[in-house]
Amino acid sequence: MIEGRLEPQTGTAFELNRGQLLRVIDLEGEQVADMVAFNRSDKAEWLSSGRSIDYANSIYLTTGHTLYSNRSRPMFAIVADDVGRHDFLLTPCSRETFEIIHREKNYHPNCFENLSTSLANFGILPYSIPTTLNVFMNVEIDPSGKLSILPPRSKAGDAITLRAEMDLIVGLTACSAEMSNNYKCKPIGYEIA
Amino acid sequence: MIEGRLEPQTGTAFELNRGQLLRVIDLEGEQVADMVAFNRSDKAEWLSSGRSIDYANSIYLTTGHTLYSNRSRPMFAIVADDVGRHDFLLTPCSRETFEIIHREKNYHPNCFENLSTSLANFGILPYSIPTTLNVFMNVEIDPSGKLSILPPRSKAGDAITLRAEMDLIVGLTACSAEMSNNYKCKPIGYEIA
Repeated sequence: MIEGRLEPQTGTAFELNRGQLLRVIDLEGEQVADMVAFNRSDKAEWLSSGRSIDYANSIYLTTGHTLYSNRSRPMFAIVADDVGRHDFLLTPCSRETFEIIHREKNYHPNCFENLSTSLANFGILPYSIPTTLNVFMNVEIDPSGKLSILPPRSKAGDAITLRAEMDLIVGLTACSAEMSNNYKCKPIGYEIA
Repeated sequence: MIEGRLEPQTGTAFELNRGQLLRVIDLEGEQVADMVAFNRSDKAEWLSSGRSIDYANSIYLTTGHTLYSNRSRPMFAIVADDVGRHDFLLTPCSRETFEIIHREKNYHPNCFENLSTSLANFGILPYSIPTTLNVFMNVEIDPSGKLSILPPRSKAGDAITLRAEMDLIVGLTACSAEMSNNYKCKPIGYEIA
């Protein structure tokens, strides 16, 4: 078993073999982890929010759901989930996210940079990073379509476990956006078994 | 002015110059049109559902909203909209959509193929087609996250007008999925001014 810890506002990338289990753990509670994946043998195949939402017929994905690639092939099966609330609508926070939404002119750590930097080690270019699975992110939609980003429902030690359905390259962050994490950026743990 | 008509279950691709207006018209009512766009001078920049939903803070985009690229730059401004209900969650229907959701074993016309074939003329590869803006598609989400695909709210002659905010390559279809179009696939009109 490999165990890892992402310090607040950092990210990593690693390989998963088909059949391996990835457990993402909210170590302290109320912390989001952005996750993306690519087929290791053909990086033009990537985790697709649209295909996954379409085939699950739900925006909330949990135990029993499959996460699909842009080619409609299973990339992950969710095999355990303590939380049941993860967002698959929003892109990873980027420098522009803070500029556009928060009028932040100065540098701010961000998931997009953390993913780009980590995935570059595997030859994946920034433009190919799609909408991420925002693990533990608590987004609600009212009937008018408006989004509310609420504190994650995850408590310290809560986790989600995903089984790789193909050989993958995975990017994972401890999200850098204060507002998504009840205004404190915290670490994320992960285990590969 | 260029006027076009997409016969049922067909698609096309064309260029738009910055400042040009694209009007997509539901000619007969209750018909979806899938739309995607790429920066003409750098096809690694594409229309991003996640960025657009994030910055609008809404899953329903209408007059006054901007549609963003994966690089967080404006691609379109929505300048008029008779309907106010368009989906940006689901990917274009593909052969696999009909296999997975409808257990359809035989060939079925589909938006993904119609987009891929049309966009190939501009050097855009199928794998780079992201989640489309599903113009006029009426998707509702209940509090559990479950999606309902309802008949489009558009009546005959209803339209949406988008202003190109950069030079673009645009793919557009008259959607091929019966269930999204109140069980009859109909034509779509478009005008470029």
